[in-house]
Amino acid sequence: MAAPEIEKLVTLLARLPGLGPRSARRAALTLLRRREALMLPLADALAKAAAEVKSCTICGNLDARDPCGVCADERRDPAQLCVVEQVADLWAMERAGAFRGRYHVLGGTLSALDGIGPDELGIPKLAARVAEGGVTEVVMALPATVDGQTTAHYIADRLAEAAPEANITRLAHGMPVGGALDYMDDGTIQAALKARRPV
Amino acid sequence: MAAPEIEKLVTLLARLPGLGPRSARRAALTLLRRREALMLPLADALAKAAAEVKSCTICGNLDARDPCGVCADERRDPAQLCVVEQVADLWAMERAGAFRGRYHVLGGTLSALDGIGPDELGIPKLAARVAEGGVTEVVMALPATVDGQTTAHYIADRLAEAAPEANITRLAHGMPVGGALDYMDDGTIQAALKARRPV
Repeated sequence: MAAPEIEKLVTLLARLPGLGPRSARRAALTLLRRREALMLPLADALAKAAAEVKSCTICGNLDARDPCGVCADERRDPAQLCVVEQVADLWAMERAGAFRGRYHVLGGTLSALDGIGPDELGIPKLAARVAEGGVTEVVMALPATVDGQTTAHYIADRLAEAAPEANITRLAHGMPVGGALDYMDDGTIQAALKARRPV
Repeated sequence: MAAPEIEKLVTLLARLPGLGPRSARRAALTLLRRREALMLPLADALAKAAAEVKSCTICGNLDARDPCGVCADERRDPAQLCVVEQVADLWAMERAGAFRGRYHVLGGTLSALDGIGPDELGIPKLAARVAEGGVTEVVMALPATVDGQTTAHYIADRLAEAAPEANITRLAHGMPVGGALDYMDDGTIQAALKARRPV
């Protein structure tokens, strides 16, 4: 109905997470209204990022450099390694600013249903990286879901064999800061009570 | 924190309606995972649409052609003219498939606060278009808001002077099809009752 150039743009925009067909149309119209300020810069930014950004061969982070900025940063503690599921999780950890070691991005969690096994996640590569030595702690920062925790346990077992000297830890479970008890699920309350600490 | 190429992409994506900073990051990661299938085609589609799509000089619709496909379509009734606020509204009318005349896109509604007067909306141009003759009905399909209805009344007054032979109508107010009475606002119920029809 609209010009094929517009329809094509709407179809592609609708494939972004968070945009449905209707919001993709709205986005396309906004872009067409702001060609110089938004549409052409976005086209450039997409082409440039597609050409420049690559996966870090050490940790799996996305960066224009390889090794990535985190792996190349000499001020970071090479003795601490944080295992995350996705690059977005690495970014979340960095935003929190509490971890000063290095990362390992799995790219997913173990899932028999989806045919994702240890090799698909590069777990042998992670084990080899830790076995090389110099890592004293591996922090599992995987999602607090069944798949995430299964994956964490599997990795902990593998690392206990491959690098018995490294401590394996995981993020604490408990109340989110700012959370109201009334809105917590039972599992969170149980975990928070079990891990209670002296005030 | 992430590469500047990624940060730039996230910043631009976050300026699209419907995407906030967090969903823009998610969208950027999805794009980087699907470079060939989504990211490069989107960059191309943006550049192509920015170059090709223009406003129709007759009605204000967006199309790669000028006059646009609707204005150029000989099977459409030139005696019926539908006045809409935005191009998105024209598309919504076309999706509904109930109108077979031509359009006039205002690009906004009258708003003293935002300094939008009749000239900014091209209302003199609309009046001239109707005064040329051949238009027997002007359908006001403007939003059922205060600004929209004010604009509709203003245009009706202008057209009554410029082209007294044309009938000015507006979309009916009433219950949306599929709407539950319980969820309707008072204004809608009052309008629907006032405009009640024999069954």
